[in-house]
Amino acid sequence: MADSFSSTSYQIARLDRVRQGLRALSLDALVISHLPNIRYLTGLNGTAGLVVLTMSSCTLLVDFRYKSAAQALVRESGIGELVTVTIVPQGYDESLVAAIRETGARRIGVEAAWLPVGRFNKLSSALAAAAPTPLQSPLAPPALVPTERVVESARLVKDEREIATLKEAGRRLADAVAPAISLVQAGKSELRVAAEVDALLREVGFERPAFETIVASGPQGALPHARPGQRVLAEGDGVVLDFGGVYDGYCVDLTRTVQLGDTGADFRRMFAAVEDAQREAIAIVRPGIAASAVDAAARSVLGRYGLAEAFGHGTGHGLGLEVHEEPRIGRASPGQLDVTLEPGMVFTIEPGVYVDGLGGVRIEDDVLVTTDGCEVLTRRSGE
Amino acid sequence: MADSFSSTSYQIARLDRVRQGLRALSLDALVISHLPNIRYLTGLNGTAGLVVLTMSSCTLLVDFRYKSAAQALVRESGIGELVTVTIVPQGYDESLVAAIRETGARRIGVEAAWLPVGRFNKLSSALAAAAPTPLQSPLAPPALVPTERVVESARLVKDEREIATLKEAGRRLADAVAPAISLVQAGKSELRVAAEVDALLREVGFERPAFETIVASGPQGALPHARPGQRVLAEGDGVVLDFGGVYDGYCVDLTRTVQLGDTGADFRRMFAAVEDAQREAIAIVRPGIAASAVDAAARSVLGRYGLAEAFGHGTGHGLGLEVHEEPRIGRASPGQLDVTLEPGMVFTIEPGVYVDGLGGVRIEDDVLVTTDGCEVLTRRSGE
Repeated sequence: MADSFSSTSYQIARLDRVRQGLRALSLDALVISHLPNIRYLTGLNGTAGLVVLTMSSCTLLVDFRYKSAAQALVRESGIGELVTVTIVPQGYDESLVAAIRETGARRIGVEAAWLPVGRFNKLSSALAAAAPTPLQSPLAPPALVPTERVVESARLVKDEREIATLKEAGRRLADAVAPAISLVQAGKSELRVAAEVDALLREVGFERPAFETIVASGPQGALPHARPGQRVLAEGDGVVLDFGGVYDGYCVDLTRTVQLGDTGADFRRMFAAVEDAQREAIAIVRPGIAASAVDAAARSVLGRYGLAEAFGHGTGHGLGLEVHEEPRIGRASPGQLDVTLEPGMVFTIEPGVYVDGLGGVRIEDDVLVTTDGCEVLTRRSGE
Repeated sequence: MADSFSSTSYQIARLDRVRQGLRALSLDALVISHLPNIRYLTGLNGTAGLVVLTMSSCTLLVDFRYKSAAQALVRESGIGELVTVTIVPQGYDESLVAAIRETGARRIGVEAAWLPVGRFNKLSSALAAAAPTPLQSPLAPPALVPTERVVESARLVKDEREIATLKEAGRRLADAVAPAISLVQAGKSELRVAAEVDALLREVGFERPAFETIVASGPQGALPHARPGQRVLAEGDGVVLDFGGVYDGYCVDLTRTVQLGDTGADFRRMFAAVEDAQREAIAIVRPGIAASAVDAAARSVLGRYGLAEAFGHGTGHGLGLEVHEEPRIGRASPGQLDVTLEPGMVFTIEPGVYVDGLGGVRIEDDVLVTTDGCEVLTRRSGE
């Protein structure tokens, strides 16, 4: 089926999903400034750009640097009928105001989670200044409306093409696990191991690491987001190795905790607890349950070990064009989104425990929610 | 002098400079959310955090993940008297509102260039909800005020310690130039060259690449921000090689265009033009001139070659804790900041020309403005 479904069909389906969001919010247009959202809708993989989406048009604004790339994209991908490319001569905001005016839109959504308040205010003023006076037009002047999660909601459930990409990325990351673990050796610095893991990621076919590889050894392991440093790995260390790669734009992410020789009874007990917690969290994943239930499963196992307090982060995060995206797999808490799982969602499951002086243990894999459970993308069958 | 000036003295001077900005804007407090600005003021190198700065206090809010790192920082760097660390139990915004209330501040600046409009609106509502009623207090309720460039202005001129770091980073990048050029060989893919350059960056002592290394070969060179791909380098290619590293948190950035054999007369002429443009732009740098004058110098040389139209980006950008920061070295244009150069500013000079079909040439070095001109940080003496 994936073969008979063209690139353009995916693009049409994505635009349709986001347009449903516009309709639900009674928006005439949505200005998309978050780059992964722009990539999702147009395929453009740049460091700048804007999209103005209406029910009938999709305009991609890019500057000189991306002119050739954007034009090639439209030419080669067959999305030329769906997306119009406009080259920005000076600043993006001038072109954006012009593009909005051209659509005639009056209620224009912006991405409140990403658009800085300074830019919001400048754009609002520029739109008001460009609007016809009340005598010229009886309509209300165009107004920017902060919106939340319009494109993100569409991205939450991956389409077939995204799933195929994430599966392939997961296989490649699984292939890297054994060689990566073998790189963790006493006598090497954390930085050296990190550099070797990065080289390995490229060897197995990733475009680049998905984030700065974490090698946190011995007591450093107690810092969940330690950056690799000059510390030299020693016998008896537990070493948290957290790495990921970008494959065709999509991110996968994995952690193993490597024990160099005898890490001691306390550390081994932490390790066993995290293994159990991860296993139980993966076992519970299926459509219809709340993301927070997966977090609760991991947390309850760690509680049985008396380690609940040592688990200070959430159990996981979504994966896709970003290495941290929805769904958040964390505690249910007021004001925090708690997504109900659906087939096609992809996220990490990564409980961890961190004890000052003793170090840390984290084990992380990536799962795809299926119709009746989940598929672990980052383990070879039998592992 | 750098030796006798302690880490704490630098921190005091930085806090002072930013507090002058608060005073100028009649702010009681400034909420700092941009991570490089947080690192500048506190030294914390995290992926989350907030600072609430008043004339007499500086509170760093971090979550569980950075607890140990933040506490170690305060303990070891001697900034404990200047900065108070608060661990965020739940969400950052709840703790932020509490921290703001504790200061009693009524005019609270936020960083308009970085704070998303959605978060601005939520914080404004939360502050209003937490405020005493008019009957309880005759004072105006606390209000968030969008501000621009308060910390960025302080960062624009580097202090001695930053200059020493950037000089060392520049030396290391200069050391990598000849070996990097020798990696550019016909028969290798762009991606392979990029991976080898990244490994080289670590060998010469960088923590990590400062951005995704660009290897744009042959016609790909016409895309100023091409990402390296599967294209295999061939004899006759011009290859744009743009790479940089992070050293002790500070970014340096360099481009060379490598000609593999005979690139043809047109390409050689482009190369000569860019070399001339870069030389003249560097020659003009000195305190008191506008950043746009440096851009104009490069542009005028390219104009003499009839290549002004092929130069679509600015001549350079500032370097420091970010790889793109102020000052912008570009055309003078309404609404765009045009900084007057001062000793201690550090930026790139990187004219380029891009011609569809023919490819591209860009040459980039990093300069430090001195009292009477500039010092090129990324060339060994004699180069």
